[in-house]
Amino acid sequence: MALLEVWAPDSKKVEVQWGQEVLSMIREEKGWWRLDAEGGEHGSDYAFFLDGEGPFPDPRSLWQPQGVHGPSRTYDHTRFKWNDMAWHPPPLSSSIIYELHVGTFSPDGTFEGVVNRLDYLVDLGITHLEIMPVNGFSGIHGWGYDGVNLYAPHEPYGGPAGYKRLVNACHERGLAVILDVVYNHFGPEGNYLGKFGPYTTGKYRQPWGEAVNVDGPRSDEVRRFICDNAIMWFRDYHVDALRIDAIDTIIDISALNILEEMAIRKEEIQAELGRYFFLIAESALNNPRIVKHRETGGYGLDAQWNDDYHHCVHTVLTGEKEGYYIDFGSLQKLAKALSETFVFDGAYSMHRGRSHGKPAGDLPGSRFIVFLQNHDQVGNRAFGERLGRLVTPGLLKIGAALVMLSPFIPLIFQGEEWNASTPFLYFTDHADPELAKAVAEGRKEEFASFKWKKDDVPNPQAPESFQDSKLNWKEKDEKDHSSFLDWYRKLMKLRKSVHGLSSGRKEKVRISFDENAKWLHFEREQFSVACNFSKKSQIIEIGEKRSGKVILASDDRCEIRECGMFLPPESVAVLGPPGIRI
Amino acid sequence: MALLEVWAPDSKKVEVQWGQEVLSMIREEKGWWRLDAEGGEHGSDYAFFLDGEGPFPDPRSLWQPQGVHGPSRTYDHTRFKWNDMAWHPPPLSSSIIYELHVGTFSPDGTFEGVVNRLDYLVDLGITHLEIMPVNGFSGIHGWGYDGVNLYAPHEPYGGPAGYKRLVNACHERGLAVILDVVYNHFGPEGNYLGKFGPYTTGKYRQPWGEAVNVDGPRSDEVRRFICDNAIMWFRDYHVDALRIDAIDTIIDISALNILEEMAIRKEEIQAELGRYFFLIAESALNNPRIVKHRETGGYGLDAQWNDDYHHCVHTVLTGEKEGYYIDFGSLQKLAKALSETFVFDGAYSMHRGRSHGKPAGDLPGSRFIVFLQNHDQVGNRAFGERLGRLVTPGLLKIGAALVMLSPFIPLIFQGEEWNASTPFLYFTDHADPELAKAVAEGRKEEFASFKWKKDDVPNPQAPESFQDSKLNWKEKDEKDHSSFLDWYRKLMKLRKSVHGLSSGRKEKVRISFDENAKWLHFEREQFSVACNFSKKSQIIEIGEKRSGKVILASDDRCEIRECGMFLPPESVAVLGPPGIRI
Repeated sequence: MALLEVWAPDSKKVEVQWGQEVLSMIREEKGWWRLDAEGGEHGSDYAFFLDGEGPFPDPRSLWQPQGVHGPSRTYDHTRFKWNDMAWHPPPLSSSIIYELHVGTFSPDGTFEGVVNRLDYLVDLGITHLEIMPVNGFSGIHGWGYDGVNLYAPHEPYGGPAGYKRLVNACHERGLAVILDVVYNHFGPEGNYLGKFGPYTTGKYRQPWGEAVNVDGPRSDEVRRFICDNAIMWFRDYHVDALRIDAIDTIIDISALNILEEMAIRKEEIQAELGRYFFLIAESALNNPRIVKHRETGGYGLDAQWNDDYHHCVHTVLTGEKEGYYIDFGSLQKLAKALSETFVFDGAYSMHRGRSHGKPAGDLPGSRFIVFLQNHDQVGNRAFGERLGRLVTPGLLKIGAALVMLSPFIPLIFQGEEWNASTPFLYFTDHADPELAKAVAEGRKEEFASFKWKKDDVPNPQAPESFQDSKLNWKEKDEKDHSSFLDWYRKLMKLRKSVHGLSSGRKEKVRISFDENAKWLHFEREQFSVACNFSKKSQIIEIGEKRSGKVILASDDRCEIRECGMFLPPESVAVLGPPGIRI
Repeated sequence: MALLEVWAPDSKKVEVQWGQEVLSMIREEKGWWRLDAEGGEHGSDYAFFLDGEGPFPDPRSLWQPQGVHGPSRTYDHTRFKWNDMAWHPPPLSSSIIYELHVGTFSPDGTFEGVVNRLDYLVDLGITHLEIMPVNGFSGIHGWGYDGVNLYAPHEPYGGPAGYKRLVNACHERGLAVILDVVYNHFGPEGNYLGKFGPYTTGKYRQPWGEAVNVDGPRSDEVRRFICDNAIMWFRDYHVDALRIDAIDTIIDISALNILEEMAIRKEEIQAELGRYFFLIAESALNNPRIVKHRETGGYGLDAQWNDDYHHCVHTVLTGEKEGYYIDFGSLQKLAKALSETFVFDGAYSMHRGRSHGKPAGDLPGSRFIVFLQNHDQVGNRAFGERLGRLVTPGLLKIGAALVMLSPFIPLIFQGEEWNASTPFLYFTDHADPELAKAVAEGRKEEFASFKWKKDDVPNPQAPESFQDSKLNWKEKDEKDHSSFLDWYRKLMKLRKSVHGLSSGRKEKVRISFDENAKWLHFEREQFSVACNFSKKSQIIEIGEKRSGKVILASDDRCEIRECGMFLPPESVAVLGPPGIRI
């Protein structure tokens, strides 16, 4: 027996295509329709008719083997044999995260392709894999943020079974898995949710259109749709953490914010399964409430991304001033981010045209995830250039050290560790010709400026936008790239092996810098990091750290001298106490 | 010298009509334009031209003697001589609030008319006057929620000087003043704010149109417009508290909620002036965060309205089930409101079609204001009927006791104390014929149902809708009314004179009730209130309270008997310890 059920509160009649039959479903409470159908607990196709219109796939479909427009297929989660029953993920405070996109990470572009590279990632020093959305979306390839089948892993990646094999393989190797989930909008193609119920509301708008209805009439079931989805990833896919996309576009004025509701549900399943799970927000709100404990008025999430830190490092390295980078670009702001976490803690943001944020206060660095590069910061550039295309190798290594030795949790983006030459472009594979055209034109318009000729901007729908974004694994060991790989390995080893560098406490980071001479020196516990961003060698004041030694440097000429720290052009050195051995 | 200044960030040129001259203003930082004009610190008319368009009144005009479309007039706040320099308002926990509408409270319909009745209110037992909006709005009369001159007391009421005389007269008599302020929308007529800047945003909608822009680009100055307004009432008008209208329609996702910003500003002026001020929210969110201390993650407001309590009492008395009353109507819910404050503390609301609210937890009753009637609950009925038109005198007296002896802060609505026979209709006085027509038609449509014939619904624009709503003071001492006045006096005296009834602590209210027999008995400290809602006499179980005595009753036949409390039909009795004297 397969229990088929669907929420369709406005429908007068709901039927289901089941094998050759069309069966009437039974209306139950709160707009739910149910039917116990004969046979087919696993592997049977079905689709719904709403008042005669259809067939439509199940909004909670667990398997969409024929894509977003096709029928749903029943899936029995109990069939998979897990090998990870003794598994516990490490605490976030000790993590080093690797963000990857399944379609471009390996030549295959599948979950299996990722499995094949896991040993490399473990050897590199990674503790957590962060996987860009695997929910079902239109076409074969795409970033995944246009998901419409939130409960069904993308079939071209390997579907539900493939994703389970990947998570299982990660856990077998001691790797935790973070999954990127999108609850702020639904994709434009294959989105039949609106046929079933009020999943969105015209009351609020977000960048992609109507907001998801989490506080309006009949939002209880929409909130359940979201929260149940989060719990499914934990329970049925053994995912360790969720990275919740752009929470600032989920508008919720209700007393129980949906993020807090998710945190409550997470605490419940932690207790039930006896395993730790984590919720991480991508938040541009600079609102400490997101990650504060519920007991002190917070929503109780475990961590959040901190874009301010990225923007500080990126602008100091590149000198870029476009868009939101206008708000950054000084060592003073980088120093503020290092010590205060948020640059915008109530300060005026020119980009936003208003004051923004609140002080992070006593929140420890382990509640904030930082990065030198990520899919957005690379892929939302017109040409998807990685940072290595924009700055010198010396500056790139400083950037890596600023992230990897920060008081925050570091995240690196696939291929960053060897300064991959491949871009990460914006690519889509929509079938609807109107939508395909709109996406292509929209992208051109977005970047139409004095800097770029309109027709030079790559078309997201072009097959080469996807193909060109695939990592070229051959170059990893090539001369120009292996020195970066070596640098990242050393940084990760340092962070992981030295007590205090991956601390979960709120730290007092002592910082000195010279905006004109372009150097910055910050101290964490008994270590310090000295950066020379300028094209000239210089000796910088490092105070009592002179009694220590250089334990890691991007340039062999870095050395402690009587008068201070000697740094060649565009170099970085890590200083530690004399007794230390890495 | 008069310093003229205005925020007009999008204008290329701003001029001011000053006497016979049109003077160019000087652009300064953040979109502000300023000019030191010769003479005229008080009583000089002026208006602005924006890029040649105008003249428009000043958005921060302190005086609009010619109405919403007329020029602004300079006003020197230092000219008024206050007599209240030693004044301190009582704490909210000990307050009894009287809500009044200036236009209909007295025959004159002015601030002066209110002054003439203050001694009566003091004698009645009132501690706080809550005055419906006095901000400038279109026409002569109206409720005031369609304000457009937020800084200028309505001229037909007596303008700035008249309002100061009223507040001063209140303080001279020991009465505190609460002012109703509207920050969730601006009125439809005379609203030139959009000419000056982005005061509203299309990102969110609220019931009256676009939301006020408190979290979008250039919202800093809109927030200042609001916060400075609040501070003006405290500083320049000596108002003791603000009642902030419908805060659930102020949509703000920024890290520092505008309500919290107002609370911070309030704390600052408290420290500066050495006097207590209070912020009270009209909130339908059932979110304890609004009134929790900032230290524990709250916004730090002092109190909020609790509509749940009203709806419980109203539906138990009237049996009404329309609109939001569908969610109430049982003694069980009334008991929940008495003990838990919020009926909707996460529970499902049929009217909203979703779960609503969060538990109020340990918040004391003194943070919640309750009422048997108020301008909305009376005036938003098609015929503006007071409760005395809907229920028997006996039930009305029970209702008054349930509010006045509750653990919350009681508020009564003008004339309620003598069961005034006059309605409180919705009335407007818009000059724009299109708007006038729309308001009239809108009101008809709103109430078009099987219950009412469309053309029977009073037209808000009709002069008699306003005239009929004026209190008829003659009836106060008439036989049919004086018994209510006597009842209210006794209830207020009891609440004020007996220690524990106006407590500011979180209380454990013990309640017993019988839904079928229609009685409810609740105990607060050593007192209890026994209510018989039925049309039959009955003896109810009152446990150990049998050893006490009846200290107040709506019916002389109420008495304690061996087997319990005897209550005649539709009666209420207050029991206390034997030694008590009122």
